[in-house]
Amino acid sequence: MQRAVKVCIGAALAAAVVTTAVAQVTPDRAIKYRQGALQVLGWNMGPMGAMVKGERPYNKDEFLQRAMNIEHVAALPWEGFGPGTDTGAPTKAKPEIWKDAAKFKQYQDALQAEAAKLVAAAKLGNLDAVKGPFGAVGKTCSNCHDDFRSK
Amino acid sequence: MQRAVKVCIGAALAAAVVTTAVAQVTPDRAIKYRQGALQVLGWNMGPMGAMVKGERPYNKDEFLQRAMNIEHVAALPWEGFGPGTDTGAPTKAKPEIWKDAAKFKQYQDALQAEAAKLVAAAKLGNLDAVKGPFGAVGKTCSNCHDDFRSK
Repeated sequence: MQRAVKVCIGAALAAAVVTTAVAQVTPDRAIKYRQGALQVLGWNMGPMGAMVKGERPYNKDEFLQRAMNIEHVAALPWEGFGPGTDTGAPTKAKPEIWKDAAKFKQYQDALQAEAAKLVAAAKLGNLDAVKGPFGAVGKTCSNCHDDFRSK
Repeated sequence: MQRAVKVCIGAALAAAVVTTAVAQVTPDRAIKYRQGALQVLGWNMGPMGAMVKGERPYNKDEFLQRAMNIEHVAALPWEGFGPGTDTGAPTKAKPEIWKDAAKFKQYQDALQAEAAKLVAAAKLGNLDAVKGPFGAVGKTCSNCHDDFRSK
């Protein structure tokens, strides 16, 4: 149910919310919001990465919870990149985000797709099963950072 | 399933993660993380509040999605308040968070409980049903801000 709702609403949110709710907030607020959501993603990737690299013992429950955090939050930052939010607070967002919105959207979709696969793998509860999917999620992060985030 | 896992893991996360994963990150990082997660909460409360106040038309799908965002993210900020994270970056967190951890935890639990009720109400798809539960979620925010956040 949650997933179905999320998928159904995703497109509507991307199109409608950005042009209504978000139009009422300042660019400063939108920039802080999207940075906050991206912080949450990065924070949750950290311990999973440590487990995958063997720097921490694999904890299947924690790994699954963090994967679910990534899956849910992966849908969130993007409405913070609405029109006019390229400036207004310190940001590493490149102008390409607004110039090539289709490609930016592809990267968002890739993250969400790979995050869903990571959750499915994490439910199996073994470290070997999550290594590939975790790497695939990380690759979507770095792809987007390479093309759309300033150094 | 998601909910069951979340409930089961909540206690473990609160106890174990904070003392292991989070011990490896700097206070600065933890502070930015928790502020990011709280930004996500505030951002999602905004449009729901506008709908409840009649400043925007009620959109049941968007309202439900935002309520689910609150429910999921409501569990997240707290591991960013681990020991030693009272300073290290600009923060409005009061020392009382670490002096009265039990009360702080009560407030977290209250938010999560009210957020779950808000999601249940939002699934009914009518504005009158969500007004009370939305107010109850907002009250848990302001209670915590009053006691644990500096002006």
